[in-house]
Amino acid sequence: MADPIKTRLYVDSPLADGQSVGLDHERAHFLRHVLRLDRGDPVAVFNGRDGEWRAVIDGFGKGWCSLTVTEQRRGQDTTPDLWLLFAPLKKGRIDFVAEKATEMGVSRLWPVFTRRTDPNRVNLDRLRANAVEAAEQCERLSVPEMGEPMPLERALAGWPDGRTLYLCAEAGSARPIAEVLRDARQTGVAGPAALLVGPEGGFDQSELDEIAKLPFVVPVGLGPRILRADTAVVAALACWQSLAGDWTAGGSDRRPPFRAPTFPSAGQSPAGEPALD
Amino acid sequence: MADPIKTRLYVDSPLADGQSVGLDHERAHFLRHVLRLDRGDPVAVFNGRDGEWRAVIDGFGKGWCSLTVTEQRRGQDTTPDLWLLFAPLKKGRIDFVAEKATEMGVSRLWPVFTRRTDPNRVNLDRLRANAVEAAEQCERLSVPEMGEPMPLERALAGWPDGRTLYLCAEAGSARPIAEVLRDARQTGVAGPAALLVGPEGGFDQSELDEIAKLPFVVPVGLGPRILRADTAVVAALACWQSLAGDWTAGGSDRRPPFRAPTFPSAGQSPAGEPALD
Repeated sequence: MADPIKTRLYVDSPLADGQSVGLDHERAHFLRHVLRLDRGDPVAVFNGRDGEWRAVIDGFGKGWCSLTVTEQRRGQDTTPDLWLLFAPLKKGRIDFVAEKATEMGVSRLWPVFTRRTDPNRVNLDRLRANAVEAAEQCERLSVPEMGEPMPLERALAGWPDGRTLYLCAEAGSARPIAEVLRDARQTGVAGPAALLVGPEGGFDQSELDEIAKLPFVVPVGLGPRILRADTAVVAALACWQSLAGDWTAGGSDRRPPFRAPTFPSAGQSPAGEPALD
Repeated sequence: MADPIKTRLYVDSPLADGQSVGLDHERAHFLRHVLRLDRGDPVAVFNGRDGEWRAVIDGFGKGWCSLTVTEQRRGQDTTPDLWLLFAPLKKGRIDFVAEKATEMGVSRLWPVFTRRTDPNRVNLDRLRANAVEAAEQCERLSVPEMGEPMPLERALAGWPDGRTLYLCAEAGSARPIAEVLRDARQTGVAGPAALLVGPEGGFDQSELDEIAKLPFVVPVGLGPRILRADTAVVAALACWQSLAGDWTAGGSDRRPPFRAPTFPSAGQSPAGEPALD
């Protein structure tokens, strides 16, 4: 990596040597009046496709800022193919989930409504804004895509072949998560994965029984204490990344043992799949 | 477990059949005016020593409430002997750390000041209140003890024999945490443990080098992304619990593979320091 640059920005534009990038009003204001940056100051930019680039500020105008991209700092890496399905939580807790799940490297954040989900809608723009901010801060080269919020039943009805859904069960009979992931790895059935974390207060019992019966679902246990939903999200992601994801090989330079397909560009609709975004 | 009781309270008093327990003003107000409980209603109580008991409300007075303990619901269990040393964070983030670390089963929460720690004091009462509330909600039978806040250097200078300190290093050269914990278990050097998570913005480099050289310190890597301090806390605790703690055996009924001494009573002032436990 080249010189340290403190400001990292996620942008939509293509990134290449000499490319111009325009920033919207909010970003322009942030750079100019919060960070007090000026013409000629460097920033780092990434778009989820072209790696990370150095760019310099060309100038500010009324409600805009333009940058010129100068050199690549890092090539695009891959992020493990890991989805997080979660029941929306109250504001504050859901912001937290978006932030933490992004830091923990999920490739898709997918809000699903369970029978007992308390909030019955979700602000996807806000979720995405939190994910973008977290990606900028944690040195990620991508932003998780957002799955279209829908009832859990519908998400499961259109479940894609070959993707295992690990159901984070409440304290109880499920096998410990580390044991399950170790076995999956040893028996070579590892592949694209998803984690499902239920609502505060837990799943409805009959709903839980129905989910657990699905052929692509594997219940996993997260210990003897009752975890809050937001705690369970971080904890389950940490277990997955450390045992099966990109924490296993000492960094992003080595290939994770699970299949890690090229990460779809944030905002770009992935092929197939209950068409999200 | 007996009949479901929604309200769980941590108390200081001894718990035994027929024992009377008084609650302070705040608790009395909460039971009466927030939960709208009345004389004769059942609650569950625990004190970190005597397991969990059913109790019934005898009555309310001006600023107090009294309970009578009736029967034991669960015997006292053990919690893995795991400390968390962390650099105090801003309000909000530190509340979060207390809540999450309690849910994740730490036996001691120990705020330590690193060279770059931003807040230079910590509100131990607030930290403890958050831990108590989390313990009540997550079905724990104990509250983590609070280590006396002190400079990290001093904490390390008096480090007890036989306790491994896992240093959560920022993205870099440390071995992946899952690998380190697996080896520790296989080679039988597992024992009392502690995790150290640095401040937002990371350790000072020379400080980090000095810590890493200590004989009881083992650096562990938490993947290629830069985690916020509060994320690192939950993530590292999840890895430890799932690989070496009480998530490994499917619940609290089985003995964890690491030494799990009788958990010291919460609220009891730890003698000396670092001679704690």
